[in-house]
Amino acid sequence: MCEKPMAINTAEARKMVDAAKANNKVLTIGYQNRFRPDSRYLKEECKNGELGEIYMAKARAIRRRAVPTWGVFLNEYEQGGGPLIDIGTHALDLTLWMMDNYKPKYAVGTTYHKLNNQKNTGNAWGDWDTEAFTVEDSAFGFIVMENGAAISLESSWALNTLDVREAKTTLCGTRGGADMVDGLRINTVDLNRQVTIIPDLKAGGVDFYAGSGDMSPGDLETSMWIDSILNDTQPLVLPEQAYVVSQILEAIYVSAKTGEAVYFK
Amino acid sequence: MCEKPMAINTAEARKMVDAAKANNKVLTIGYQNRFRPDSRYLKEECKNGELGEIYMAKARAIRRRAVPTWGVFLNEYEQGGGPLIDIGTHALDLTLWMMDNYKPKYAVGTTYHKLNNQKNTGNAWGDWDTEAFTVEDSAFGFIVMENGAAISLESSWALNTLDVREAKTTLCGTRGGADMVDGLRINTVDLNRQVTIIPDLKAGGVDFYAGSGDMSPGDLETSMWIDSILNDTQPLVLPEQAYVVSQILEAIYVSAKTGEAVYFK
Amino acid sequence: MCEKPMAINTAEARKMVDAAKANNKVLTIGYQNRFRPDSRYLKEECKNGELGEIYMAKARAIRRRAVPTWGVFLNEYEQGGGPLIDIGTHALDLTLWMMDNYKPKYAVGTTYHKLNNQKNTGNAWGDWDTEAFTVEDSAFGFIVMENGAAISLESSWALNTLDVREAKTTLCGTRGGADMVDGLRINTVDLNRQVTIIPDLKAGGVDFYAGSGDMSPGDLETSMWIDSILNDTQPLVLPEQAYVVSQILEAIYVSAKTGEAVYFK
Amino acid sequence: MCEKPMAINTAEARKMVDAAKANNKVLTIGYQNRFRPDSRYLKEECKNGELGEIYMAKARAIRRRAVPTWGVFLNEYEQGGGPLIDIGTHALDLTLWMMDNYKPKYAVGTTYHKLNNQKNTGNAWGDWDTEAFTVEDSAFGFIVMENGAAISLESSWALNTLDVREAKTTLCGTRGGADMVDGLRINTVDLNRQVTIIPDLKAGGVDFYAGSGDMSPGDLETSMWIDSILNDTQPLVLPEQAYVVSQILEAIYVSAKTGEAVYFK
Amino acid sequence: MCEKPMAINTAEARKMVDAAKANNKVLTIGYQNRFRPDSRYLKEECKNGELGEIYMAKARAIRRRAVPTWGVFLNEYEQGGGPLIDIGTHALDLTLWMMDNYKPKYAVGTTYHKLNNQKNTGNAWGDWDTEAFTVEDSAFGFIVMENGAAISLESSWALNTLDVREAKTTLCGTRGGADMVDGLRINTVDLNRQVTIIPDLKAGGVDFYAGSGDMSPGDLETSMWIDSILNDTQPLVLPEQAYVVSQILEAIYVSAKTGEAVYFK
Amino acid sequence: MCEKPMAINTAEARKMVDAAKANNKVLTIGYQNRFRPDSRYLKEECKNGELGEIYMAKARAIRRRAVPTWGVFLNEYEQGGGPLIDIGTHALDLTLWMMDNYKPKYAVGTTYHKLNNQKNTGNAWGDWDTEAFTVEDSAFGFIVMENGAAISLESSWALNTLDVREAKTTLCGTRGGADMVDGLRINTVDLNRQVTIIPDLKAGGVDFYAGSGDMSPGDLETSMWIDSILNDTQPLVLPEQAYVVSQILEAIYVSAKTGEAVYFK
Repeated sequence: MCEKPMAINTAEARKMVDAAKANNKVLTIGYQNRFRPDSRYLKEECKNGELGEIYMAKARAIRRRAVPTWGVFLNEYEQGGGPLIDIGTHALDLTLWMMDNYKPKYAVGTTYHKLNNQKNTGNAWGDWDTEAFTVEDSAFGFIVMENGAAISLESSWALNTLDVREAKTTLCGTRGGADMVDGLRINTVDLNRQVTIIPDLKAGGVDFYAGSGDMSPGDLETSMWIDSILNDTQPLVLPEQAYVVSQILEAIYVSAKTGEAVYFK
Repeated sequence: MCEKPMAINTAEARKMVDAAKANNKVLTIGYQNRFRPDSRYLKEECKNGELGEIYMAKARAIRRRAVPTWGVFLNEYEQGGGPLIDIGTHALDLTLWMMDNYKPKYAVGTTYHKLNNQKNTGNAWGDWDTEAFTVEDSAFGFIVMENGAAISLESSWALNTLDVREAKTTLCGTRGGADMVDGLRINTVDLNRQVTIIPDLKAGGVDFYAGSGDMSPGDLETSMWIDSILNDTQPLVLPEQAYVVSQILEAIYVSAKTGEAVYFK
Repeated sequence: MCEKPMAINTAEARKMVDAAKANNKVLTIGYQNRFRPDSRYLKEECKNGELGEIYMAKARAIRRRAVPTWGVFLNEYEQGGGPLIDIGTHALDLTLWMMDNYKPKYAVGTTYHKLNNQKNTGNAWGDWDTEAFTVEDSAFGFIVMENGAAISLESSWALNTLDVREAKTTLCGTRGGADMVDGLRINTVDLNRQVTIIPDLKAGGVDFYAGSGDMSPGDLETSMWIDSILNDTQPLVLPEQAYVVSQILEAIYVSAKTGEAVYFK
Repeated sequence: MCEKPMAINTAEARKMVDAAKANNKVLTIGYQNRFRPDSRYLKEECKNGELGEIYMAKARAIRRRAVPTWGVFLNEYEQGGGPLIDIGTHALDLTLWMMDNYKPKYAVGTTYHKLNNQKNTGNAWGDWDTEAFTVEDSAFGFIVMENGAAISLESSWALNTLDVREAKTTLCGTRGGADMVDGLRINTVDLNRQVTIIPDLKAGGVDFYAGSGDMSPGDLETSMWIDSILNDTQPLVLPEQAYVVSQILEAIYVSAKTGEAVYFK
Repeated sequence: MCEKPMAINTAEARKMVDAAKANNKVLTIGYQNRFRPDSRYLKEECKNGELGEIYMAKARAIRRRAVPTWGVFLNEYEQGGGPLIDIGTHALDLTLWMMDNYKPKYAVGTTYHKLNNQKNTGNAWGDWDTEAFTVEDSAFGFIVMENGAAISLESSWALNTLDVREAKTTLCGTRGGADMVDGLRINTVDLNRQVTIIPDLKAGGVDFYAGSGDMSPGDLETSMWIDSILNDTQPLVLPEQAYVVSQILEAIYVSAKTGEAVYFK
Repeated sequence: MCEKPMAINTAEARKMVDAAKANNKVLTIGYQNRFRPDSRYLKEECKNGELGEIYMAKARAIRRRAVPTWGVFLNEYEQGGGPLIDIGTHALDLTLWMMDNYKPKYAVGTTYHKLNNQKNTGNAWGDWDTEAFTVEDSAFGFIVMENGAAISLESSWALNTLDVREAKTTLCGTRGGADMVDGLRINTVDLNRQVTIIPDLKAGGVDFYAGSGDMSPGDLETSMWIDSILNDTQPLVLPEQAYVVSQILEAIYVSAKTGEAVYFK
């Protein structure tokens, strides 16, 4: 079980996937947002086809002013990237998982170093070291999948906006849509009327995965991982899935640098 | 003064711009959303540099279920396109005008025909004719400008989402940002604190443009146009600006068809 | 088409039903609340089995202080009753129609003349004539159906309560429930979670009954009645249904007088 | 001091009352909701005649999905009943105490076993054992008192409704009314205007009963009971009052079984 | 019936009062805010002693940016004063009437000309003529009555504050208090608890003054005046009361000029 | 560092200020409300001239029913005064500091002993000892400064009002205003529009005073005081400033007793 993102680049990630397979070892990546109650409820809805075919999605990881000032988060050399690989990666993993769609066709993107030389920033964890802040402060991307679906990806640690959401996905499908705003909302049409559905995720028993009960997301992630090792069950986060996340993030960095679209083979 | 978008394609639009210049005639396009009180207030803020350099923007024209069922709106042949040219064009014009940035580098996009064969749709103006509905029902794009700024464009007449906004822009700049949600909100940092600024656009006198007073947006558009003709003043919507809007919309349609990025020369 | 309630007592109502049948005439009663958008939406839900078997319901017609002071509303001799036959009758008709359950087993009830001799009453239409006010000011009932379902009926023109609702029904079924509070709300369980469903009854097209479109409730009632006469179609409010409403109201008055339950044969 | 309800049936309850009297022992029942700040405030208002004569009341104990899954709550044989004796008993005791009216004339009622065989129920304490769940899941009653007043009683552990309230009473009197919704609200008429009165039950000193001060409800119940034993003072909950509660609950069960009204002698 | 304030100074006002008396004519002043439903309800409460002795009050007439730009409102010579005599006079009259206390001991006050030379003011009726604006833009006073009660008076047409209220009074008495915020609120203590009382002034019949019924404030003022003339009844606004208002306003202007307290004989 | 107010009267306060100067000792008074985040933010705004010249202010310390019943708070002899010196002093210090205006010209005021003989008071800390309560229960004042600015001062422990605020200031200046309601709000005019500015005082780093960081108000007060002693830096609360507060409070007591204005030399 590795921290996300799985590697510093796609090539390294590929080696990990191959090594696990070759050695018949269980490998998973710590995309813990999949274990949240709203994520699990929504995944079931998607599995049951309640949204139909999902053709447009937004993966959002937007903070207004919350740059992590500890550790090596800001250091391009040691960290490899900024908010895109720190929090954007979670939103993207969540979105791809909901869509169950892992075949990207091409991606474009931009990264910005616009606020990292500012002082008196109103940052949640105090002013950052402007010298040390070498990674991007925000990054955006647009990914088109082989089947024509599109994903808009937004990630920032610091951006002048009020539209703030972290590790959230928006899904638009042929039968319904899902928004993670003020809790999970599902929208659809019934009896020729627009209908909004509000699940109460705080009350009642939960049993989507065998034995999960009312476990906290962290406990559930842990217990499922232990189960994978002891009983050789498939982990919830498959390495092939995490690999695609890494592929897309890398493409966005490349596109931002070259000013061109990056096509996946 | 022509209805928006200015022409069925870029080539036609170019001819219009050139003809106006050659004949020394005043030409403008009916992008009436520029005349709204919030648009005018925000434009002044942008002009005064209150947002600094704007490097990320969102142009949004999203309806949940409001497909126009009258006229030829749904007809690809007669109309040339769906929500992208009907309402997406307004949101994009507004955004480019605020940024005062008319040099696009490349664009990608997708268009969808996903809901147009459904019945009992909960549509605001009653069910549409599924046979006649040949234009797209939603379209999305990502535009990168020469200076590196990015614009995310969303347009739909029918999309399963609760995140509904029409003819709205979101601007993120180095000094501040602007959101058009529950009215205009400007966000920035002052004295090391995140600050939200709420202008009261309903009260008080307004005098951004000479003689505008408390005119309604429509009256203001009309009176400025009359002034342009009588006194040869520059119209608020310049034909060169409208041309760039058309260029970008066309590029999104092309990208959607080819599955590739479209680079502007 | 007759005003509700259909007659001054059950015997008269029976004669009307029989006369219509014998003469092959179309008869209906003006229970116009069935034609409201929320009523029609909910009826469809009930027909589709979304609530399952409805076994408990509340028919509510409660005003805090809104005694009608004009006409003969207050006169026992000319009117035959007070809020029970004026507004309680609507709530009961709506409830029975939703349940599609017209076989009552027994009913009990109470009627009150408690506030009708007061002055300075804060009444919405000004103080009433205390001498003239001979009908009840509120009435309550509890009805048990042949199949075991129960209906709690509440009606008042003047009652010291904040729990005010007029012509509203609450339905509790084996699969889901419906409340008419702040608009129509449907509650059920999905994926082991309590779920609240909010239909948007103000937007979109409506076509539950052939040709209804976006007609107002009054226009719809009128046009369906005209259709019944011209084309001999079944009216929405059947005389046999209205008869049961009259039966139950009469039983509540009798029970209030005798202090005993009234059993239907 | 015994847990509520005082006995498994009326006959046993009568023996307890008689034994206490015969042996000159103090007996009380644990109706702890009487000791809540809102209950005590409202009782004072009732005693002072602020509501006038109370002629209509609702005793409500409605949960949407909160079936107790531990202990023997679900077992008909060991427990004697479900929500009616578990939580309905509290709401009824509170209501009768406020009315100071303990002479019932007759009662009717229904009990339901409608949801107890369902799975994936969204229950607050996890799914119940459908085999073990032999008591009713909801019960309703209508009680008419000797003086003509009526009480509507609702109790459920699981009911598809959004109108959820536990151990709450609604009182309608000739001078005013009381609702326990979003805190205690008293409504009346003053100077010919409808008036709503909101007491702040969280602030300020409280001294309704000698020595109660700002005690928690539990401490107050305990200290009053100790006082009753040490100083032979009358307990707040008199055994004769608790007996009437038991009488009415038993009558509702009987009525539900026989389908007939139960008259008290 | 004269417009308020009754005269340009106290001396003139005195002549009017004396002339009316000497000639046995009915005289009244147009303090129309006394006829508002909230004013009339509160006056009844005060008369009934519900507030006890009122010893502290606030008379407020504060606008943020609503300078009247028409007529001669801004002209010191023709108008005699600014917001103090335009709107402050109403708030003060209302307050004195509620207190039924017309014996002032002394007054102090300040007047300001701080915003009247500004441009682009966000004024509700457009920018004012800075040359013409010779009256004060705001004025404040503190009045101590013979019986020791105090009144804080605030008036402005333009003041940088969010605490905006016009023609409102706040009363603090020994038994209760009244605030005119979000409608009329009365606060007191009952059963050792702080209690807030909310009258519903929109519903129900009104009959505080003979024949007033549901008349609008304007109609009521008119009809009472006609009644005064035809039937020689006492007008609601007595000239002696209006005289005291004028006395106090004059004292505030004098105090503002001299920088000293003004004592009434 | 002394508790506020600095002395029992102005003469004593003067001795303290002189003694500190003569002995070259650092003296400060515990006006801890200056160290609150909203106070510090607002002070910076004032220093930067964002409000322009402040000419009207309100110092408010109003409790509805929160008389301190412990210690010697109620004792005139030992305490010297009631809410005016207990909490009014904080509001006044805050206001003067924001205005940076310490030259009063004259003051008037009233004090009341109106509720201190009541029982069953709904007081937050239980009923007070009516015999012991010899200080005022509320006090009000109006202060005019040498430069013409006015301050309205309100203080109470018990007052029948809903307009409750403690240690809050309202400032009205030529460029903008500040209200402390639901957090700090700054209002001004920008681009001819009324604008409300909401700083987020809970998030982000704070560094107004060297080394303050995210310290709590108490820690900041302590650390600045230690710094004053160790490094002989000027304390935030200067003794000359505290002296003026005492001067004004004394003047209000004197004015209340004599019924006349008190002029400062």
